[in-house]
Amino acid sequence: MKKVGLIGGIGPASTLDYYMGIINGYMRKTKDINYPEIVIYSVNMTEMISNIEKDSWDKVIIQLTQAIKNLSVAGAEFAAIASNTPHLVFDEVKKQSPLPIISIVEETCKHIKEAQYQSALTIGTLFTMKSGLYSNPLKKYGIASLLPSENDQKEIYSIFYPNLENGIVIAEDKEKMLKIVSRIIKEQNADSLILGCTEFPLMIKQEDLTTPVINTTQIHIDSIVNYMI
Amino acid sequence: MKKVGLIGGIGPASTLDYYMGIINGYMRKTKDINYPEIVIYSVNMTEMISNIEKDSWDKVIIQLTQAIKNLSVAGAEFAAIASNTPHLVFDEVKKQSPLPIISIVEETCKHIKEAQYQSALTIGTLFTMKSGLYSNPLKKYGIASLLPSENDQKEIYSIFYPNLENGIVIAEDKEKMLKIVSRIIKEQNADSLILGCTEFPLMIKQEDLTTPVINTTQIHIDSIVNYMI
Repeated sequence: MKKVGLIGGIGPASTLDYYMGIINGYMRKTKDINYPEIVIYSVNMTEMISNIEKDSWDKVIIQLTQAIKNLSVAGAEFAAIASNTPHLVFDEVKKQSPLPIISIVEETCKHIKEAQYQSALTIGTLFTMKSGLYSNPLKKYGIASLLPSENDQKEIYSIFYPNLENGIVIAEDKEKMLKIVSRIIKEQNADSLILGCTEFPLMIKQEDLTTPVINTTQIHIDSIVNYMI
Repeated sequence: MKKVGLIGGIGPASTLDYYMGIINGYMRKTKDINYPEIVIYSVNMTEMISNIEKDSWDKVIIQLTQAIKNLSVAGAEFAAIASNTPHLVFDEVKKQSPLPIISIVEETCKHIKEAQYQSALTIGTLFTMKSGLYSNPLKKYGIASLLPSENDQKEIYSIFYPNLENGIVIAEDKEKMLKIVSRIIKEQNADSLILGCTEFPLMIKQEDLTTPVINTTQIHIDSIVNYMI
């Protein structure tokens, strides 16, 4: 078994989902009675968001690379960043990483390709949406990448931050979010919805929408478990 | 700020409580907008329990010491074992540890002394109860250490394992547990109840009993946060 090292804390609530998801997924898949060893390096989310807001991507790369080095010396054999937004610098971090890293974006695109969806709408943090984190990777797989309008992106992020980022789901926020997302899906004729942020699955569930919901956190967890075993 | 390294996974459910408890406790106490960096090394609980059951304490010491060394090279400046039972070898691990370690037993005894309780009943895993993990430390502080009878220890552990260990609280189990514990408190005239296992607070809450309930997880978290800042 290969030992996973997780970069956590972006945010803490989704780190919990990864931790329990990996343990449960591993034990269910392998029928092993042994618990997998896991190393987590939980970073300072405030520092990371501040660097992203200031476009100080070099500092984000240093923060992530240092965390992976720490995970590596602690015994991790491969790494995963338990968050979508930092994947904006995935390629740069990968170049400097002493460990293989499983990309949430790559794994999600593979999943969508296999499921044969044609046009996927991505919602996520403002950075994820406006940078089109999923756009080029989706195109590489021949899938049309849809994004909310600039105004809708701002609206979605204003609902997301800071409550949902901190794992808090407020009923009125959920209702507002579903209304906006449903409208965009209809307007753009999307056949699938990428929850491009690891906290979104806390708020948006498959039963809330008729359009297939792509849970990037769960896809990432499944890929991590597969790589472990 | 001093960076904490947590030995987690014993069990996973209480590791989550420590992780969120430390982050929330730190931010509440310091009013800092920055999230504390935290390193977690989650060990194989099955291996540890099996070693404990076989009385292979040397192997438990190696497992814990290795985990602390991994936390240390990953940047942790002090350590905490997020579980009561492994504290049975706390002194041996401390001798070999490259980092200072905050003991849940020591911090709990200090807390009970400050609260001026005189006779504390301890419940926990079978190992914690039959070894009297809290007995000598409590006596050192002049507090009488009470334990369930051998039969009651077995009964308590049979309710605890494996559901509560895995973070699952079953309503009938809770009812059974409260009935046994209430009877022992009365029989032994205890003035306080030590939840000597980090999963017990998931099942036994202060509102369930009139006797003061000592939540060792929370006391440990508070001590960790104080040491950090």
